[in-house]
Amino acid sequence: MILHLASFRWADGVTDDDVARLTTALTAMAAQIPELRSYVAGPNLHLRPGGMDYAVAAVVDDEAGLHTYLDHPAHAQVYADLMGDMLAERAAAQLPLSAGELR
Amino acid sequence: MILHLASFRWADGVTDDDVARLTTALTAMAAQIPELRSYVAGPNLHLRPGGMDYAVAAVVDDEAGLHTYLDHPAHAQVYADLMGDMLAERAAAQLPLSAGELR
Repeated sequence: MILHLASFRWADGVTDDDVARLTTALTAMAAQIPELRSYVAGPNLHLRPGGMDYAVAAVVDDEAGLHTYLDHPAHAQVYADLMGDMLAERAAAQLPLSAGELR
Repeated sequence: MILHLASFRWADGVTDDDVARLTTALTAMAAQIPELRSYVAGPNLHLRPGGMDYAVAAVVDDEAGLHTYLDHPAHAQVYADLMGDMLAERAAAQLPLSAGELR
């Protein structure tokens, strides 16, 4: 399996409503992509100083699943409709993940 | 539960050996911190263009567990011995996580 992690810093002017709309859209997107075994998205809880504004964690079975997810029309649509205008910075990475390794 | 996500970009001159040493040290650190329910760390697989160099995903029960982990002497030691000199950029966030949400 593969864990895809991404965190984002917003541009100036992004509101809590924008972020709530994005979370709703990402959750709906994830439901359309069967390659996503699991998907978590939301604003940073800011339990520590600094940090990014938002983060996503997604688990897929393999590299093909990762590309299907990230190249999916529903993913592109969220970027076109919302994320693209909100983004100032994106930090992403993928890690190998064994079953039950994140629980 | 809380999912702590962090990704890192290395400074110039960081070698694969440095990264391997870091992964060994982080894995040993995680074993010393019972508040860590689970912990995944490693170099970015770079399955997509761009992205950070390294990432960590950690699951703890609650905010107290998060602070115990991030303020733990073993965590500070890895920063002092290795990570501090390697780091050019860090992007971190925490997300709420329900049981079984990442599988």
